Amino acid sequence: MKDINIILFDYFTILDAFGPVEVFQRLETHYRIKFYSENGGKIKTKPDLGIETVNMNEIEHYDILLIPGGQGTRELVNDGAFITKIREIAVKSENVLTVCTGSALLAKTGLLSGHRATTNKMAFQWVASQDGSVAWQRQARWVVDGKYYTSSGITAGIDMALGFVEDTISTESADKICSALEYVWNKNRDNDPFGI
Amino acid sequence: MKDINIILFDYFTILDAFGPVEVFQRLETHYRIKFYSENGGKIKTKPDLGIETVNMNEIEHYDILLIPGGQGTRELVNDGAFITKIREIAVKSENVLTVCTGSALLAKTGLLSGHRATTNKMAFQWVASQDGSVAWQRQARWVVDGKYYTSSGITAGIDMALGFVEDTISTESADKICSALEYVWNKNRDNDPFGI
Repeated sequence: MKDINIILFDYFTILDAFGPVEVFQRLETHYRIKFYSENGGKIKTKPDLGIETVNMNEIEHYDILLIPGGQGTRELVNDGAFITKIREIAVKSENVLTVCTGSALLAKTGLLSGHRATTNKMAFQWVASQDGSVAWQRQARWVVDGKYYTSSGITAGIDMALGFVEDTISTESADKICSALEYVWNKNRDNDPFGI
Repeated sequence: MKDINIILFDYFTILDAFGPVEVFQRLETHYRIKFYSENGGKIKTKPDLGIETVNMNEIEHYDILLIPGGQGTRELVNDGAFITKIREIAVKSENVLTVCTGSALLAKTGLLSGHRATTNKMAFQWVASQDGSVAWQRQARWVVDGKYYTSSGITAGIDMALGFVEDTISTESADKICSALEYVWNKNRDNDPFGI
């Protein structure tokens, strides 16, 4: 049983988080999903959902870290205390998954330096500018490099989550979830219809 | 400017609601998204998000009604007071959209009688049994019949939401959202990879 620790922040993109959540919550015997944020409490979203989080200093098990993207990342890359904390959590975590511009936050920690990674293609230049020493991939639905999984924009997070299930549990589990979600999984992580 | 009134209930499927929400919230000049429930207050979900809702007696504008599916529908089809209220809201609304087993709730009101409709293919028999006088479609990603839009399982709701945007705003708007979401839209509503 592993914890999936999702870091939320004001104005994260809801589907970045809840696409993967819908995948992972179907594996209740494998994963416990928990929502954290810099200071805990309610998170602002568009539209407002009033989602509650726990302070990220209270993470219990450093298993799987998931960082969504969204408008809020634009400010957060400049929040040194937040980035330092994300770095600490990412270092301790067994796996780190980012969706969309969530990879900007991870890149800013320096931990992706020398690794292959990807991100939303519309925000590609901005994300890549957070750390030029990352081998940023322009054509990838998602990228796996060591313990790091980084996905392209928004719905690519669903494909990556299914890929993570395939890699760490089984192809059968991933396929079963696809059927339940009636989702046509883009299984090939190098097949990027939005590549640039 | 139209209100999209989303009816939530305990154990709705989060992606049924938040897939379409991610589409609609990108059209802020067209839509206001609001969350309602039978009695208002916090809604239970898996995993728990602590989402807040307003009592559905307080709906302000009967524009677009959206009903997600999920485990919670299994009990709610037998909640006469809830079904009566859903019927009242659906009658007054300009458009009614259901995702997945949300169509079971709408079918139970009797309003789909004689109309074409679809639903999640895994739960097809159970949903169809709510009203045998509906022309249930076994092969359809989503179905449009008059003011009613009904979609297949879970992620089909994203395709339907994009279809609704195409039908009521423009193809250009729908395509623009697809690019932003990096989503490969199944544009043809008769193309159902999960049909039975």
